[in-house]
Amino acid sequence: MENIGAVFVSEVVGTAMLVLLGTGVVANVALAKNKGLGGGFLMVTIGWGFAVFAGVIVAYRSGAHLNPAVTLGLVANGSEEFGMNVPVNAISVLAYIGAQILGAILGAVACWLTYKQHFDAEPDPANKLGVFSTGPAIRSYGWNLVTEIIGTFVLVFVVIAFGGNRQGDTGGLASLGALPVALLVIVIGASLGGPTGYAINPARDLGPRIAHFILPIKGKGSSDWAYSWVPVVGPVIGGLLAGWAALPLLPLLTT
Amino acid sequence: MENIGAVFVSEVVGTAMLVLLGTGVVANVALAKNKGLGGGFLMVTIGWGFAVFAGVIVAYRSGAHLNPAVTLGLVANGSEEFGMNVPVNAISVLAYIGAQILGAILGAVACWLTYKQHFDAEPDPANKLGVFSTGPAIRSYGWNLVTEIIGTFVLVFVVIAFGGNRQGDTGGLASLGALPVALLVIVIGASLGGPTGYAINPARDLGPRIAHFILPIKGKGSSDWAYSWVPVVGPVIGGLLAGWAALPLLPLLTT
Amino acid sequence: MENIGAVFVSEVVGTAMLVLLGTGVVANVALAKNKGLGGGFLMVTIGWGFAVFAGVIVAYRSGAHLNPAVTLGLVANGSEEFGMNVPVNAISVLAYIGAQILGAILGAVACWLTYKQHFDAEPDPANKLGVFSTGPAIRSYGWNLVTEIIGTFVLVFVVIAFGGNRQGDTGGLASLGALPVALLVIVIGASLGGPTGYAINPARDLGPRIAHFILPIKGKGSSDWAYSWVPVVGPVIGGLLAGWAALPLLPLLTT
Amino acid sequence: MENIGAVFVSEVVGTAMLVLLGTGVVANVALAKNKGLGGGFLMVTIGWGFAVFAGVIVAYRSGAHLNPAVTLGLVANGSEEFGMNVPVNAISVLAYIGAQILGAILGAVACWLTYKQHFDAEPDPANKLGVFSTGPAIRSYGWNLVTEIIGTFVLVFVVIAFGGNRQGDTGGLASLGALPVALLVIVIGASLGGPTGYAINPARDLGPRIAHFILPIKGKGSSDWAYSWVPVVGPVIGGLLAGWAALPLLPLLTT
Repeated sequence: MENIGAVFVSEVVGTAMLVLLGTGVVANVALAKNKGLGGGFLMVTIGWGFAVFAGVIVAYRSGAHLNPAVTLGLVANGSEEFGMNVPVNAISVLAYIGAQILGAILGAVACWLTYKQHFDAEPDPANKLGVFSTGPAIRSYGWNLVTEIIGTFVLVFVVIAFGGNRQGDTGGLASLGALPVALLVIVIGASLGGPTGYAINPARDLGPRIAHFILPIKGKGSSDWAYSWVPVVGPVIGGLLAGWAALPLLPLLTT
Repeated sequence: MENIGAVFVSEVVGTAMLVLLGTGVVANVALAKNKGLGGGFLMVTIGWGFAVFAGVIVAYRSGAHLNPAVTLGLVANGSEEFGMNVPVNAISVLAYIGAQILGAILGAVACWLTYKQHFDAEPDPANKLGVFSTGPAIRSYGWNLVTEIIGTFVLVFVVIAFGGNRQGDTGGLASLGALPVALLVIVIGASLGGPTGYAINPARDLGPRIAHFILPIKGKGSSDWAYSWVPVVGPVIGGLLAGWAALPLLPLLTT
Repeated sequence: MENIGAVFVSEVVGTAMLVLLGTGVVANVALAKNKGLGGGFLMVTIGWGFAVFAGVIVAYRSGAHLNPAVTLGLVANGSEEFGMNVPVNAISVLAYIGAQILGAILGAVACWLTYKQHFDAEPDPANKLGVFSTGPAIRSYGWNLVTEIIGTFVLVFVVIAFGGNRQGDTGGLASLGALPVALLVIVIGASLGGPTGYAINPARDLGPRIAHFILPIKGKGSSDWAYSWVPVVGPVIGGLLAGWAALPLLPLLTT
Repeated sequence: MENIGAVFVSEVVGTAMLVLLGTGVVANVALAKNKGLGGGFLMVTIGWGFAVFAGVIVAYRSGAHLNPAVTLGLVANGSEEFGMNVPVNAISVLAYIGAQILGAILGAVACWLTYKQHFDAEPDPANKLGVFSTGPAIRSYGWNLVTEIIGTFVLVFVVIAFGGNRQGDTGGLASLGALPVALLVIVIGASLGGPTGYAINPARDLGPRIAHFILPIKGKGSSDWAYSWVPVVGPVIGGLLAGWAALPLLPLLTT
C-alpha cells in the first residue's frame, strides 16, 4: 500500500509537468500578444514531445504511464506489475488513472497562471478552450474516434513493443525511455494530429477540460462537453487494442 | 523457414509504421482544413525522419531494412546473413521486399482512414496523390533518376558504413540505430529532397501508389504510373551502388 | 581554495558560451539584414536550448550551474558540496554567482562583436535591448513574476529530480546531462516563454543588461532597469521553491 | 605512410558527405521550384548540422576533422597524433587539409548534379553561388572576419574541450561524437550565422567555390573571389586561437 502512495505521487507530478508544458506551448502559439504567437504546428508538436520528455524524467518511479491509455494497454497486454512492484489490480489501476487526471488538472491550472494576462487579452473563446483541450478540425464523431484510436494505438504499441525488449521492465513510458518517447510523441502529433489535435491520452484532455470548466477564465466560452467523450473513448480503445495486438505480435517482433 | 516468417512479420509491421507516419505528415501539411496545413517542408522532413525512428524500433528483429534499397545494398555488399540468422538468398530477399511492399500498402491505408474526412474535403487530386507517393518538382525522368540515386546512395552507404563498425551486425537500419537513421533521413530529405520529394525507398513509393490506385478515395485523380518507375529504379540503383562502393571503401573507412 | 578558482573559471567560460549563443540567436532573428531575420520563435527556443548544451559541455568541472537559480536551488535542497568537492558556503555560492554574472557579461560582449554591423543597421532600440535581455509581452510586474517563477521552478525541479537519481552527483545542469537539459530548456521556452521571454536565469538577464548599459551600442535606448528586477527575483524565488519542494518530494520520486 | 592514405580517404569521403548534404539544403531552400523553397533559416541550420552528423559517421577513422580549422586547432593545441596513429607533422597536416578541400569539391559537384534542373531554372546568379559558398549580409571584410573568427573559435574550442575529457582521444569532431557536434553546428549556425552565413570551415567554403568556378553552371555569375579569403582566413584564425586558448584553460576545465 505504501508503494501505491508513491506511484500516485509520481503520476501526479509527472502528468502535471506534462500537461503544464504541453498546454503551455498551445497557449504561447494561440493566445494574443504572446512572443510565440503564430509559431506553427511544428512548434506545437515539439513542445508536446519534450513536455512528455520532462514528465517521464520526473516520474520514472511509477514507470511514467502519465496516460490512462498506457495503463490500460499494459493491463490488456497482461502485465502483472506496475512500477515499484505494485501489483496490477482494480485499486492500482484506479490509483494510476486518478493520479493522471488529478495531475492533468493541476498542470492546466499552472498553465493558466503562467498565461493569465494572455487569457485575459485573447478575444476568441475557442482559442482559450483550445489551450486546454483538443477539438476536431472537421467535427464527425465517428471519424474523429478513428483518428484518436489510430494515434493512440501507435503510441501504446511502440511503447509496449520496445519495453518488451528489456527483461524486468514493468512497462510505461519509462520503459521506452524519455527521449525515444518524446520523439514518438512528436511524430504522432506531426503525422496523425491533423484531424483532432491528437489527444491520444484521456487524462491530458479530460483533466484540462475540467480545469477550463472550473477556473474563472475571463470571457471563456463552452467547455464543449459534447465532444469530450471522443478524446477519452478513442484513446482507451486504441490503448486496449495495442495491448491486445501485442500479445500475438510481440513474440514475433522481439527476441 | 520459421525465422523467415518472423522477419516477414517484422518488416511488414515496421514498414507499415514507417509509411503510416510518413504519409501522415504529408496529409497533415497538404490536405484541406488540417491543423498542420501549410506546416512547411521542415515539418515534413522531421515527420518522415521520426517515422523511420518508430519503424526501426518495432522491427529490430529483422534488422529493420524497411526498404528494398537497403536489402539489395546489403546483398551487393556481400552480406551472408540478414536478421535472425536468415541466410541471404533469393527467397529471403523476396520475403524482405514483399513484406516491405505489403507493409507500405497497409500503412497507406491506415493513413487514409486517419485523414478520411480531409481527403474528402481536399479539392485538388494532385495533393491527394502527393500524400501517398512522390512526384517531381520538374519532370525529367533522367535527372529525377539521378536525384533519387544520389539520395539513396547516401542513405544506404552511411547505414552500411556505420553498421560495418560493429562486429556481428547483420546490417539493416537497426545496425545504425533508430535515432541516427532518423537524423540521417531528416537531412537527406532537407538536403536532397527538393527535386523529387525523396522516395529513396521503392516500397515507400510503390506501396502507397498501389493503395492510392485501389482505395475508393473521393475525387482522386491519376496515380501517375508514368512516373512510378523512377522512385523504384532510382533507389534500387542507388542502393546497389552504395553496396558495391562500400566493398573497397569500408576496409579503409572502418577499423 | 584552489578548487574555488577552478569552478569560478568553469562557470565563467560555461556561462559566457551559453549567453553568446543564446543572445546570438535573438540577434540573428531580430536585427536588420541578418540571414536569419524573422526566423521565428521555434528557432529562438532551439538556439537557446543548444546554447545551454554547449555551455554545459565546457563547464562539466563545476557541475555547470550557469544560473544563480540553480545554485540557490541546490542550497535550498541542502546540498553540501558543489562541483570539485567545493563545500557549499557563502564564499562558494558568491563565487558561483559572481562567475555566472561575469561570464554572462563577457558572452554578451562577444555577441555584440559578432553582430556589430547589424546592431548599427537596426533602427529600433527595443530590438537591440531585446537581444541582450528579456522584456514582458504585457507589462505587469506581478504576473510577469509569476511566469518567471513557474518557468524557473520547472527547470530547477527537473534538474534536481533527475540529478537525485544518481548517487554521488553534486548537482547542477551537468547532473542532468547536456542533451536532456537542452531539451528541457527548449520546452520551457516553447511552453512557458510566451509572456516574458523566459529569463529563468538571473545571470542570463542581468549580465547582458549590464553589457547593454556599458557598451557603446549605436542608437541604443534605455536598458529598462525598471523591469530588470523581475527576471532576477522571479528566477531566484522559482529556484528556491524548487529546491524546497524537492525535499519532501524527491524521496517519493526517486529510488 | 599507409595510414596517411587511409586518413586521406576518410577525410575525402567525410567532407564530401558533409558538403553534399550542407550545400544541398541551401539549394533546396534557395533555388527555384524546389519543394523546400523558402524553408527558412532554421531548416538550413538543421540541414548543415545533420550534414556534419553524417560526415562524422563515415569518417571516424581519421578522427573526422573535415575542417582545416579543426586540424590546425589541434596542431596549435599541441596534439602529437591524429587519427590512426598518424603523427602530426607538415605532411600529415597537408594530407588532412588537401583531402578536406578535395572532398568539398566532390560534394559540391554531387550537389550540382542532384539539383541540376533547379540550377537551370533559377534566374538569380547570386542564389546559385549562395548554394556553394557563403557571402556576407553586410559586406565589411573586417567585421565579417570577426564574425567568422568567433564562430570558428566556438566550434573548435568546444570540440577540443570535450575531446580533452577522454583519455586516449586524438581529437577531431569524432572525439566530441557525431550527435553533439551536430547540435553544436546547429546552434553556431542559428546563433552566429546571421552576418556571414557561417563558413567556420575553410574547406567547406573554398572547395565549393572552386567547383562553382569550374562547373558549367547555366547562367552563373561571379564566384566572388574578392570575398573568398574571409571564410578561409577567419576560420583559420579562429581555430588557431581556440587551440591556443585551450592550452591554459583545459587543465582548469577538465579533470
